Amino acid sequence: MNNYLYGNTPTFLGAKNLSSSLDSLGDIDAIVYGVPWEGAVTWGDYTGCELGPKVIRLTSARYSGYLPELDHIDVFEHIELGDVGDVDVVPADVEETMQRITNFSGKLWESGKFLIGLGGDHGITYPILRALTEQGKKVGIIHLDAHFDNLPSHQGDQYARCSPFARLYEQEGVRNESIIHTGIHGPRNQPEAGRNARDAGAVTVTINDIRKHHDLSELARELHAQAKEDVDCVYLSICSDVLDFAFNPGGPVDGNGLTSFELVTLVHEICKQGVIGMDFVEVYPQQDANQNSAHFVSTVILYALAGLINSK
Amino acid sequence: MNNYLYGNTPTFLGAKNLSSSLDSLGDIDAIVYGVPWEGAVTWGDYTGCELGPKVIRLTSARYSGYLPELDHIDVFEHIELGDVGDVDVVPADVEETMQRITNFSGKLWESGKFLIGLGGDHGITYPILRALTEQGKKVGIIHLDAHFDNLPSHQGDQYARCSPFARLYEQEGVRNESIIHTGIHGPRNQPEAGRNARDAGAVTVTINDIRKHHDLSELARELHAQAKEDVDCVYLSICSDVLDFAFNPGGPVDGNGLTSFELVTLVHEICKQGVIGMDFVEVYPQQDANQNSAHFVSTVILYALAGLINSK
Amino acid sequence: MNNYLYGNTPTFLGAKNLSSSLDSLGDIDAIVYGVPWEGAVTWGDYTGCELGPKVIRLTSARYSGYLPELDHIDVFEHIELGDVGDVDVVPADVEETMQRITNFSGKLWESGKFLIGLGGDHGITYPILRALTEQGKKVGIIHLDAHFDNLPSHQGDQYARCSPFARLYEQEGVRNESIIHTGIHGPRNQPEAGRNARDAGAVTVTINDIRKHHDLSELARELHAQAKEDVDCVYLSICSDVLDFAFNPGGPVDGNGLTSFELVTLVHEICKQGVIGMDFVEVYPQQDANQNSAHFVSTVILYALAGLINSK
Amino acid sequence: MNNYLYGNTPTFLGAKNLSSSLDSLGDIDAIVYGVPWEGAVTWGDYTGCELGPKVIRLTSARYSGYLPELDHIDVFEHIELGDVGDVDVVPADVEETMQRITNFSGKLWESGKFLIGLGGDHGITYPILRALTEQGKKVGIIHLDAHFDNLPSHQGDQYARCSPFARLYEQEGVRNESIIHTGIHGPRNQPEAGRNARDAGAVTVTINDIRKHHDLSELARELHAQAKEDVDCVYLSICSDVLDFAFNPGGPVDGNGLTSFELVTLVHEICKQGVIGMDFVEVYPQQDANQNSAHFVSTVILYALAGLINSK
Amino acid sequence: MNNYLYGNTPTFLGAKNLSSSLDSLGDIDAIVYGVPWEGAVTWGDYTGCELGPKVIRLTSARYSGYLPELDHIDVFEHIELGDVGDVDVVPADVEETMQRITNFSGKLWESGKFLIGLGGDHGITYPILRALTEQGKKVGIIHLDAHFDNLPSHQGDQYARCSPFARLYEQEGVRNESIIHTGIHGPRNQPEAGRNARDAGAVTVTINDIRKHHDLSELARELHAQAKEDVDCVYLSICSDVLDFAFNPGGPVDGNGLTSFELVTLVHEICKQGVIGMDFVEVYPQQDANQNSAHFVSTVILYALAGLINSK
Amino acid sequence: MNNYLYGNTPTFLGAKNLSSSLDSLGDIDAIVYGVPWEGAVTWGDYTGCELGPKVIRLTSARYSGYLPELDHIDVFEHIELGDVGDVDVVPADVEETMQRITNFSGKLWESGKFLIGLGGDHGITYPILRALTEQGKKVGIIHLDAHFDNLPSHQGDQYARCSPFARLYEQEGVRNESIIHTGIHGPRNQPEAGRNARDAGAVTVTINDIRKHHDLSELARELHAQAKEDVDCVYLSICSDVLDFAFNPGGPVDGNGLTSFELVTLVHEICKQGVIGMDFVEVYPQQDANQNSAHFVSTVILYALAGLINSK
Repeated sequence: MNNYLYGNTPTFLGAKNLSSSLDSLGDIDAIVYGVPWEGAVTWGDYTGCELGPKVIRLTSARYSGYLPELDHIDVFEHIELGDVGDVDVVPADVEETMQRITNFSGKLWESGKFLIGLGGDHGITYPILRALTEQGKKVGIIHLDAHFDNLPSHQGDQYARCSPFARLYEQEGVRNESIIHTGIHGPRNQPEAGRNARDAGAVTVTINDIRKHHDLSELARELHAQAKEDVDCVYLSICSDVLDFAFNPGGPVDGNGLTSFELVTLVHEICKQGVIGMDFVEVYPQQDANQNSAHFVSTVILYALAGLINSK
Repeated sequence: MNNYLYGNTPTFLGAKNLSSSLDSLGDIDAIVYGVPWEGAVTWGDYTGCELGPKVIRLTSARYSGYLPELDHIDVFEHIELGDVGDVDVVPADVEETMQRITNFSGKLWESGKFLIGLGGDHGITYPILRALTEQGKKVGIIHLDAHFDNLPSHQGDQYARCSPFARLYEQEGVRNESIIHTGIHGPRNQPEAGRNARDAGAVTVTINDIRKHHDLSELARELHAQAKEDVDCVYLSICSDVLDFAFNPGGPVDGNGLTSFELVTLVHEICKQGVIGMDFVEVYPQQDANQNSAHFVSTVILYALAGLINSK
Repeated sequence: MNNYLYGNTPTFLGAKNLSSSLDSLGDIDAIVYGVPWEGAVTWGDYTGCELGPKVIRLTSARYSGYLPELDHIDVFEHIELGDVGDVDVVPADVEETMQRITNFSGKLWESGKFLIGLGGDHGITYPILRALTEQGKKVGIIHLDAHFDNLPSHQGDQYARCSPFARLYEQEGVRNESIIHTGIHGPRNQPEAGRNARDAGAVTVTINDIRKHHDLSELARELHAQAKEDVDCVYLSICSDVLDFAFNPGGPVDGNGLTSFELVTLVHEICKQGVIGMDFVEVYPQQDANQNSAHFVSTVILYALAGLINSK
Repeated sequence: MNNYLYGNTPTFLGAKNLSSSLDSLGDIDAIVYGVPWEGAVTWGDYTGCELGPKVIRLTSARYSGYLPELDHIDVFEHIELGDVGDVDVVPADVEETMQRITNFSGKLWESGKFLIGLGGDHGITYPILRALTEQGKKVGIIHLDAHFDNLPSHQGDQYARCSPFARLYEQEGVRNESIIHTGIHGPRNQPEAGRNARDAGAVTVTINDIRKHHDLSELARELHAQAKEDVDCVYLSICSDVLDFAFNPGGPVDGNGLTSFELVTLVHEICKQGVIGMDFVEVYPQQDANQNSAHFVSTVILYALAGLINSK
Repeated sequence: MNNYLYGNTPTFLGAKNLSSSLDSLGDIDAIVYGVPWEGAVTWGDYTGCELGPKVIRLTSARYSGYLPELDHIDVFEHIELGDVGDVDVVPADVEETMQRITNFSGKLWESGKFLIGLGGDHGITYPILRALTEQGKKVGIIHLDAHFDNLPSHQGDQYARCSPFARLYEQEGVRNESIIHTGIHGPRNQPEAGRNARDAGAVTVTINDIRKHHDLSELARELHAQAKEDVDCVYLSICSDVLDFAFNPGGPVDGNGLTSFELVTLVHEICKQGVIGMDFVEVYPQQDANQNSAHFVSTVILYALAGLINSK
Repeated sequence: MNNYLYGNTPTFLGAKNLSSSLDSLGDIDAIVYGVPWEGAVTWGDYTGCELGPKVIRLTSARYSGYLPELDHIDVFEHIELGDVGDVDVVPADVEETMQRITNFSGKLWESGKFLIGLGGDHGITYPILRALTEQGKKVGIIHLDAHFDNLPSHQGDQYARCSPFARLYEQEGVRNESIIHTGIHGPRNQPEAGRNARDAGAVTVTINDIRKHHDLSELARELHAQAKEDVDCVYLSICSDVLDFAFNPGGPVDGNGLTSFELVTLVHEICKQGVIGMDFVEVYPQQDANQNSAHFVSTVILYALAGLINSK
């Protein structure tokens, strides 16, 4: 027997393999899981983002937990990471898949650990947070994305990747005024998306709002303060396309976005303020021969974990 | 609502969408299902063959059922095709996945229809045939492949893509002398593989044995006759790499294989003799920008169906 | 000044540059021209085949006229080739473009030279032959293709790449019984296409009909004899996808086609029987990083010219 | 009939299809046209930029007119866009092609609408502006580019992509002191290019001059003020390579350029000051598998249109 | 310490690593060495064939020595293979590099073992055989290639990849009538090449000559008989482009070539007749993302070794 | 004879070809040489960086020495550049290769000229500087890199690309306190790497330390001052991955790095302070179809030379 999670795929960043022993989470601080799901497609035929969890894990084998530029922190001196494998999606049954994501993440939320979900498309964020609210938590969300992802549905599908925030607006336990759409930019957004956010009471912080700030740390604190108001906890959901396409060759094509530095800094500073869990979605290995986007996910999550350490 | 099977993916070759109505199979003659599974990897890090069922379906939208070169047959004048969607695999749990494939295909075998499984890796053939034998059928297998795929296991995994025929040798209900490994060639085979086949009593027909025949139709009849001896039914399992790499850019790299013409002719003539079901495995969309391999699956299966029509 | 035809593009196979001196064709035996046209698209968004003439010319710079395997013939010891450049198409005006192709090729037909048209999509064959018939010629056509290309129209466009033979069936001066659809195969054909051919009186020779012949030279003579019956001249139109996709990475994806050897042999033997002109269409440089398909056009045309020499 | 402009290509950003009805421009505010032209090539064999207009239009189908980051403006609430199709270039006749571009754009300039030209190579800017000056306009030009593009000729070709500003320096009606070469950088420039600009009286603003400014809006106003001095109108010409190659995978390779944010901001602020028309040139679809560069053109032009709205 | 030859590169087909122990060749039957050399380039800027030896070795790790289609032979039951590493070429000094190749291979020839050279470009064959003749051997050569490679020089370089046979014609110890240019085809040959061969007394067997034979084994025997006449030994030199481009995506683009089956069969049958050594040249990893060409070299050489076994 | 350095490869930036005349360096100010070496591989199978020197030179043919953004300097009005070709590495003998690099660069160091080494992997920096110290120089190093590259060894190899600074720490003549690891960032670093640097007395300036500076010129002066303390000269070693992957598609994948602007500015300002030589390593042509990384090396080195001019 080997220590692969599946195939030749190691656990994420060398995490403890919990795929067959979900019960003994004693020493674990943070849990990684994958959701190899592609539902509705809003541009082109498919993106292949169901390969995301696998390729993100494979590329993570290149990394330690050491971030010299953050005061030489070694994340894994402070945090024990576990990897529980992937949700068993049902390709032709969206509803059932959503329920399974809810069940799978629900069991993990019960552990009280920091959860890291690897997508998959953005449709997975709704069932993950439905699970959290079903455990009685009142939740705020910092949503880093080029797009609102709050359209009512896509060709009749309510769980499409363009729709999770439409569902979250309706979800009891999510406080809409604590949803902070952050980094929003570009014409792939539909005009009604901005109106939907406003009508729901959600907060919009566009890419230009970010740029007007001269201090990303302070901005992060402000975003977190808004998200934290009147809720029990704050969740962080990151779509790869909040990055400019220059920094995201394996994701949706959106220019005028964040740099890699801006993203990791925001993520780090937000997590420093306290976050209950996170996801990273919309990685498309098939269009990114060198897997730059998948590689960078490791850095983003290490910055989040480094923030988590500082938040304790 | 639209008529996609999932995402923007249509049903295979415009088949009737049965994904939410598996019960009413009245008029259906043949059923397509996918197994988006990649288990153990024997070369490289991963192949991404879990994208096979999706991309095979997407490319199938280019085709009708008309084969002018086969006496202008229009397959869909004779056959009603249904598509039931994909098995819900569990990436980090091979054993459970194999059971689910068995359950899923088992329900389909009960219908008595011609089954067409789209892989996924070759590991899926074992649970599919386990399901068939569990229904009391005695089975022969024509196995078109460059490789024996009969190694005992891969790093402890008994269900690896290099092992399905090791399992089938052991499976009650499969008659080993009716397993015809056909098209075997090349040094990716291990020496023990040939011995395993011989020891199990299985038949080996190498690529050179095929070439010595001057009549592919007659060869197909002979293969079928051997496979049919003392069994209830014959199953056809095709690994993409029985094709030369020139004809299979989206599959394992094996030279000295069949041409596209030789494969469709063999498949057609075999199916003319009567086959209960088939699978086509090891399509790797990520390495084949123009999706030639996925495209060609449609032709192969239409040749099989055309044979099926002639077998009636 | 340099001797490029345009940009850094040389004339085809080092032909004499006639782009600004169309009048003095004295010594010229054969004339090359390009039609950088993509009209209706029947699969995907676009193919980029308007780059065909340029990339075919660029790759042709690698070749001499020497074919050692054909009795060491040096084509350019016998034939003076000229290149007149490309038709000025009007992207958003199909009708006008067709007229311009007719005018452009009409002027060339007047010269009585052997014409070689480089596509562009297959829609160009109709206006080229309309020009020929308008000069009072009665024409037979050997059409090497996987597909009939005889559908009435594509989304209202009568000049689509899937329709030229529908137009040619109707064209006065083309004898339908002398249209030989050769190499037809595969399910991308629509069932009505076969019926259209039959109803029009055209001849269909499928890929399997070709394979049943043991002598490609004899087959070529038979094809030519049929095409030549009761007409003044025979034209040869070649779609790249008559080749198997293994031999045509920069063209439509069709398996079970001719090998490169079979194509050049057929072309050579057909031209030996006497042909008035030819075209080669459907080369897609954008999908073929090494430009194998564009490169091979040079060989195909040299085989045609070598046949032409032998026909004299 | 469908509503494609040609093939499967829609009009740019869903503009009204004016390709066959150029006369009724009543409600139109801005007109898009393409120039699928590649003339002289200064590096490599060819770039395939004649595919630019098609692929820019195809990718534009992904976008609305909504820019949340610009005060949630929806451009198409304010502007009616029309698309007239493409100029009919003559590949082997540069002179004639230039005349046709002049004629084509001349007719459009007469309408008094805002014109948006999609290249093609940078050689198209000269005939477009020749047409404008021929209508008696005195013109200033803001030229966003890494390079001066003002060499006298390329291997005897006066209309080469490296030469349009050499022609514009000579063109009556263009005020050289109102030509602002902006963003100039890198060693692909020839030393004489800088001298040519200075000798002609044109203004050079290098990438470092831009960076020394802390306020892109103010810089834009200054650039425009210089360009506007003593002329009737200001034209904006953008070469894709003013962007750093990180942000321009489908264009010439030039590092040390603008970010996507810097470009759209400059374009927006310049257009706010009043611009009569614009072009965007040097998009190379063949080298950019994900078409990031083509996609980004939609955003750039929407920023220009948003500026136009604010300029009214 | 690990057992890599260099970097992460294993020895070819798991051969014994002899790179630092060239002296103890006792049990070794055949020796592999690489020549990572690219000299003159005759099409394009470069091919990157100096990566050939590395990538051929890396891909060889996928293979055993078992060839089921050849009577289930396991080559490594009969042959002990050694790998001595690569020649130290001097990129900017052709003459010195040629001398080093001669010295390096000369030392190996002294061992009397079967030598297998991995190119590199075809220029390496001359210094390898110079070394052999310098040891007093009279040599015949079976040369499998699309091209004669016998031009006098390339831009003054006498050791260019298009020239090795010009040098070998002149080399004492090589009998020209025993040089069999085999598989020659296509217009990349220059007319003088055919004349050069004839004038030198060398034998030309074109691709069509091969096809006229109905028995590749017999053909191989005839080729060998001609090559063996009046010489001490026969050497086999294979250029990848004797394969059709369909079977050689990582080599020069030449259509109308051998299939993978035809090549391995010829190689096997030739080696059965007795061969002293061989090379395989012109593998271009950079243009072949899946490394099909490099992979196939392992099969070709195993067929050669299997022939060698049968020749003993 | 032509003026290529080798094959179709010109000298770097049109330098004088010194490959066969190393002795007459009279007018030369700076000397380019290549080290086509790949030793140990720390991620994946290989990178192909031995193609770096060739492809960097090929792409350099696109450039002049003119940098308009740096006060219109034309570097080659001030500097005569020579190119001496490449070191003759021995693929399977690391130790010997290192000695040859030392010998080769040692001879060049004797000339007293500014040396520019093109890698190859980062392992080459140690033997280059060993050569310099062996001539009695005391050396400081500004090391621009994402990584420390100071691990003791890689699988027993002391000269691996991850180890040169481990060797330099030990090298007499290198003052460790004058080694400035600059731009360090990201989790590909191992925790011990930071400790190794500290223990050796080397200085670490992380990417965030750079960003905290508001003035790159001042930062460069400070870096240089530290490096220059108590040494005779300062050497500059640049690994491509100090650039963010967005700006380095043909190098190791590291996000959160420098922009192209930041790198050229730092290099320019450092060289202004006086530098004795430099290297640029880790360019991987095989993974970068458009060769952006190779292209950008020309700009980086021109900025260095422009700095050199200003330092005089």
